[in-house]
Amino acid sequence: MTNLPEDPRHALMLLSSIVEPGDAELDDLLGEVGPIEAVRCVWEREVPERLQRITSAAVACTRDPRERCEALVSATAACDSRVLVPGDREWPEQLRDLLLVCDTDEPHMRPPRCLWVRGEGDLGAMCRRSVAIVGARAASDYGRHVADGIAADLAEAGWTVISGGAVGIDRAAHLGSLARGGPTVAVLASGVEQLYPQGNRPMFDLIAQKGLLVSEWPPCSSPMRHRFLTRNRVIAALAAGTVVIEAGVRSGARNTARHAAELDRVLMFTPGPVTSSASIGTHELARGPWEARLVTRAEEVIEDVTGIGGPMAPSPPTQRKAFDRLTEVQARLVEALPRGYVIDEGRLAAAAGVPVVTAAETLDRLRELGWVELLDGRWRLARIETA
Amino acid sequence: MTNLPEDPRHALMLLSSIVEPGDAELDDLLGEVGPIEAVRCVWEREVPERLQRITSAAVACTRDPRERCEALVSATAACDSRVLVPGDREWPEQLRDLLLVCDTDEPHMRPPRCLWVRGEGDLGAMCRRSVAIVGARAASDYGRHVADGIAADLAEAGWTVISGGAVGIDRAAHLGSLARGGPTVAVLASGVEQLYPQGNRPMFDLIAQKGLLVSEWPPCSSPMRHRFLTRNRVIAALAAGTVVIEAGVRSGARNTARHAAELDRVLMFTPGPVTSSASIGTHELARGPWEARLVTRAEEVIEDVTGIGGPMAPSPPTQRKAFDRLTEVQARLVEALPRGYVIDEGRLAAAAGVPVVTAAETLDRLRELGWVELLDGRWRLARIETA
Repeated sequence: MTNLPEDPRHALMLLSSIVEPGDAELDDLLGEVGPIEAVRCVWEREVPERLQRITSAAVACTRDPRERCEALVSATAACDSRVLVPGDREWPEQLRDLLLVCDTDEPHMRPPRCLWVRGEGDLGAMCRRSVAIVGARAASDYGRHVADGIAADLAEAGWTVISGGAVGIDRAAHLGSLARGGPTVAVLASGVEQLYPQGNRPMFDLIAQKGLLVSEWPPCSSPMRHRFLTRNRVIAALAAGTVVIEAGVRSGARNTARHAAELDRVLMFTPGPVTSSASIGTHELARGPWEARLVTRAEEVIEDVTGIGGPMAPSPPTQRKAFDRLTEVQARLVEALPRGYVIDEGRLAAAAGVPVVTAAETLDRLRELGWVELLDGRWRLARIETA
Repeated sequence: MTNLPEDPRHALMLLSSIVEPGDAELDDLLGEVGPIEAVRCVWEREVPERLQRITSAAVACTRDPRERCEALVSATAACDSRVLVPGDREWPEQLRDLLLVCDTDEPHMRPPRCLWVRGEGDLGAMCRRSVAIVGARAASDYGRHVADGIAADLAEAGWTVISGGAVGIDRAAHLGSLARGGPTVAVLASGVEQLYPQGNRPMFDLIAQKGLLVSEWPPCSSPMRHRFLTRNRVIAALAAGTVVIEAGVRSGARNTARHAAELDRVLMFTPGPVTSSASIGTHELARGPWEARLVTRAEEVIEDVTGIGGPMAPSPPTQRKAFDRLTEVQARLVEALPRGYVIDEGRLAAAAGVPVVTAAETLDRLRELGWVELLDGRWRLARIETA
């Protein structure tokens, strides 16, 4: 077997085209031996029987894996997209949190191997302050109105809205953000050129211009039913918090909500009339088993994902005054910290435009002041629980 | 001073007519020396200066306190009402919990000294399984519809609805309960014949026939502004839980909600459209600082106040099966236990129709089985947290 890919990125693209994202067995192998060796193992049948079965057809009809990689590279370029892999500057580090989740209900799904991205923005930067808005396709006028309003106000406040590109709540959220010139990210369950549903095509074109279309699947992948559920974990993991606006009983939004809760992201919902069937799922969410915060407007969403300013934080004015007392470098670092998840020191320094050495010193001082905390070697904003 | 009342009940009525309910100084004195001696202290100016000031006018124009008592007794009878005092069989023991509340925000208000009651039912028995429904006077059609529906279904399920007799949500709750023949209790901020607002007069007449009108103030007392706030603690303390349905910002319902939370009763709210100003107060409640459970229907209210059957209780069917395995006497005691607060063994035995000795033995066994728990010498249903 001579013609194996030599570029790890190509290897990841190749593997993504033959094994569904999240596959624990393949992704654990990738973690152990790296992408190139993993491709060799697959092509030489040195993988567990289950993986052999999954990959056998693709391996049989792909005599030349490197040629297949080149086809994937061409297809990627043909739809104006690019591929991100872990370690890329743009890669959203918070996706790594998917590794930490231990799910007893179903085989646990690993973080994405690579992401196809269509649009000019920097995915990592765009998601640094982001909130996911998800909900029913069969939304009511009320639900769409609320989604549109919250998304618009989030955009106004400089927050990225992440959603799934579906009709109903997703669409209202994307359009609300776009209407205020906000960046919005649609995480798809198909290739970034397989725009589904067709009716949202004009919206997808706008998102590709002003925001980002993102997918774990290579071009030509169709939106299969199970892929929506797989995709939901990425929406939940990218954002600092997820707002559920209208959801049917046992809906896809509930699945995203579960991921958000398990990932220790802030889970929120907007209420509706108890007489509306479109709100049954969100009201169920409020009753457990996860903690879900009721939000009625963007301001409350931001309070909840930043942990500052809400009624749970007794003294927001004190916080704001404390912020005003920070030095410029300190303030830049605090502002550059992503809301709701951790970040490497180097990335944070880059985002804040501060030399790494200065960042290290300043972060230690900010930790003494109670502004930031260190978690497994990465930094995050300390949640302010008391005055 | 010869003509002091000799009947403690009369002494309490007299004191209620000259010092507003909840007065910590007077009520602590009452707790120390009893009602008759307390009247003597007041009339002989042997009380702290503040109490002297409050009572001086009444003392000056009441040369004969015993005569004044007789006038109160006549007025009470004239409006078909009776007076309950602590220790009476009908007295709702749960009001004692008001003693336990430690409030740092304002002078803490003590439990009622006595209650004027109009209607035939037994107040204690009627409140043993009761839920308070409170909310805005300026309620929307939606809010009234929800209050009416939940109250009706609570009545159907054998639960008493307690409210404040106001227009809006209170009225819808009382009428919803009455419509299904349920007992309903209106706790007033004026004498039980001073029916306010006038427009609710036909409803008050119905409540006096089918339920109970209750007040801490003697007949002829008018509904003064501050009395509504004083009254709210009684509504919260009587019921196992309080449901807030529509509330303006900083409303009276919020005050009742605070009492419920501080009294460790279950605080609940029904959501509404985020676009409705009538729901702003309830949605605020959901965001803290107290824990408030979102409820959409009577079934969820009952789940929350009994602690059985909700999503927090993982295995309701197991619970029901366990209940079916109890002996008849065990089952009767468990069923007779009030939901949400504690009860003396003697009263529980009486409510269950079980001899006291049998009750004592059986309760010990039920405690071993995890059904009940002892709290400061009184019994309550154990909350089932795990399967």
